[in-house]
Amino acid sequence: MPPYDIAILTTGDELLSGEISDSNTKTIAAILSSHGYRLRCSLSVPDQEKEIVAALQYLTGHVQFVIVTGGLGPTGDDRTARAAARALGQPLVINEEALEMVHQWFSRNNRHMEPNNERQALLPQWAQPFPNQCGTAPGFRLQHPHCELFFLPGVPTEMKAMFEQSVLPILQQRIPDSNPLQQRTFKLFGLAEPKIDRLIPYKQLPEGIEVAFALDYPLVLLKLKASGNDAEHHLDQAEALLLKELNPYLMARNEETPEGNVGKLLTRAGLTLSLAESCTGGLVTTLLTSQPGASNFLERAAVTYADSAKADWLNVPTLLLQQHGAVSENCARAMASGLRNATGTDLSLAITGVAGPDGGSEEKPVGTVYISLASANGVHVKRYSFSGNRSRVQRMSATMALEWLRRFALQQIEK
Amino acid sequence: MPPYDIAILTTGDELLSGEISDSNTKTIAAILSSHGYRLRCSLSVPDQEKEIVAALQYLTGHVQFVIVTGGLGPTGDDRTARAAARALGQPLVINEEALEMVHQWFSRNNRHMEPNNERQALLPQWAQPFPNQCGTAPGFRLQHPHCELFFLPGVPTEMKAMFEQSVLPILQQRIPDSNPLQQRTFKLFGLAEPKIDRLIPYKQLPEGIEVAFALDYPLVLLKLKASGNDAEHHLDQAEALLLKELNPYLMARNEETPEGNVGKLLTRAGLTLSLAESCTGGLVTTLLTSQPGASNFLERAAVTYADSAKADWLNVPTLLLQQHGAVSENCARAMASGLRNATGTDLSLAITGVAGPDGGSEEKPVGTVYISLASANGVHVKRYSFSGNRSRVQRMSATMALEWLRRFALQQIEK
Repeated sequence: MPPYDIAILTTGDELLSGEISDSNTKTIAAILSSHGYRLRCSLSVPDQEKEIVAALQYLTGHVQFVIVTGGLGPTGDDRTARAAARALGQPLVINEEALEMVHQWFSRNNRHMEPNNERQALLPQWAQPFPNQCGTAPGFRLQHPHCELFFLPGVPTEMKAMFEQSVLPILQQRIPDSNPLQQRTFKLFGLAEPKIDRLIPYKQLPEGIEVAFALDYPLVLLKLKASGNDAEHHLDQAEALLLKELNPYLMARNEETPEGNVGKLLTRAGLTLSLAESCTGGLVTTLLTSQPGASNFLERAAVTYADSAKADWLNVPTLLLQQHGAVSENCARAMASGLRNATGTDLSLAITGVAGPDGGSEEKPVGTVYISLASANGVHVKRYSFSGNRSRVQRMSATMALEWLRRFALQQIEK
Repeated sequence: MPPYDIAILTTGDELLSGEISDSNTKTIAAILSSHGYRLRCSLSVPDQEKEIVAALQYLTGHVQFVIVTGGLGPTGDDRTARAAARALGQPLVINEEALEMVHQWFSRNNRHMEPNNERQALLPQWAQPFPNQCGTAPGFRLQHPHCELFFLPGVPTEMKAMFEQSVLPILQQRIPDSNPLQQRTFKLFGLAEPKIDRLIPYKQLPEGIEVAFALDYPLVLLKLKASGNDAEHHLDQAEALLLKELNPYLMARNEETPEGNVGKLLTRAGLTLSLAESCTGGLVTTLLTSQPGASNFLERAAVTYADSAKADWLNVPTLLLQQHGAVSENCARAMASGLRNATGTDLSLAITGVAGPDGGSEEKPVGTVYISLASANGVHVKRYSFSGNRSRVQRMSATMALEWLRRFALQQIEK
């Protein structure tokens, strides 16, 4: 392998048995990227001392910095400190500074210290401990002849705080001349990857611009990357070229989420919103309210599974439900307009459909979804046929609903 | 490094730049685990030909099976087939069988084939292609003197379908005598890890039982593992010992989610439910409706941000809102009982609180949350002080609400 600069080693049986996915690598990688450091590889091994030792020995021979997460907890399956001691040929000793940190954490939080928490201060002899603001396990730093190692807890919040506070400043000192890779991400909805690829004027892009794709269902992420002094300028040029074709499909960019962008646009347009969800079970509402400030535009939302709920809260006529069914153009229309009449919000959006796995029919198979939007312009409704399982139908429906709101808010703003 | 058996190599700049986390490793690892195979390590490298070549050369020297995901798409940053050809010293040629698969996919889906989709059939000379049921990129298999390699697309659904259909049967043939590691996971809520650790009667556990912890905020996952002929029996014994103490905190087990378990229990108890959420923005509803069959118990849900919504749909008196505020014991109580009066469901659960980052006061800081449950037994309400950011307060509140429902349903069933 080529000599890597920075590598991550995550430890934990749960990473290799399929119980959880490795979010720590993502967190560290994102912070490193934003500071211009490129991560060269990431390795995961189980909570077994010999596997951790082997991975440490391998990485210390190949990279200059190794960031290790996991296995510093108080329980029996926390074996990283012991493995680090073995890999670097140091005895394991109670580190007084670390022990003091553990004691302080418990007294600061008015919590009773369990005897096994003392184990968390048992570190390789030459370890320099890092304080843990959010939990009991101190992290630590070790020096290897060719490599510097940083050991962090596996709990994501503790790991992140310690990385930012204790490790990043050291990296910035050690690698002062980073050449930040600048990156812009465009989150596109409504076009498949090959179609987007064909719309990119590769030959006109400035030199040094890299184009990459990723999928975050149902979005396609298109990324532009550049480094060097002219990066910002080249990215501006490339972005202008791309967006000539792709702007209508742009739901969000960079760190922004589609729901975050929709919330911002609704607030900017001064529009109030109410929602009536059926097959999406509140997903649109949850997405919008995951953002601070949702109360600026969202007045209320209903998840109306039962027909009685549609009748009570949305004034959908019982006769209509009997004649057309809850999954129908008429019902979607009645839900949106009924809700708007009841709430007086500028916009009322309704979704009704069959998310599956049950409830489909020949005429309305699983994936049939109606979206309706009531506004001062009238009531619009459209039928969609989405594919995939329940979760995909729900996500696709929710994203499409957000896309309706985005387009409406944009039109208002541009008026 | 020790000679690994099975390794995963995931490729993609987005895995090392912090844009997405590696869910493919989790998916493959879970399937391997359930068939008794233990994954020995997982490595991620960027979309660069030389990095992929180096990783393949390293892994083929250390393990018997390598599963590679990503980089088989039609666009310029898809470089895995080329890297595989270089690493194994084979020329890259159009594979007629693979080309036919690509053509068939487009004609089967009535879609227009873009010229760059033909690139997806450019494979190392001795590759045996795998069909892709869900997308355009064929996968393939390559034989190395000491190792067998499987290349799969990076899109999670395509990857999973191809792994199950094409790779798993080969592994089962090659490693027929797997000694399945049996594992049970207990998803606990309401006790911290060291406290749980102290409650485990380690000395009484049968021989060969391994205990491990993981966090899936706000749950603590406690895992028991065993292999060999007596595994099932030893796990039964260990489970009985553990649950003597921990049963009250058990929200779900193994693959089950807390919301899935709550849905099952409510259905079994024959209870109907309506929800009124404020600070959780519909999260409880979204969790419950992510499960098929939610309409069996969930009648409707309201996300009542505005006071007018609390008044209209939940009959919360305007005077009460003025006197006590929306975040108050009185309001939570009025929301739950008002909703139950309106809907006639067996249970009505209400949540109101301050999720943050804004909206906190000295008396009711961010994290103050009231949960209330109305039933035939009356109306119960409790104030909580949760810590952390908006997302953590929302998740903690939603899990606590699920826990209330779980306990109520269990009591009904046990009556």
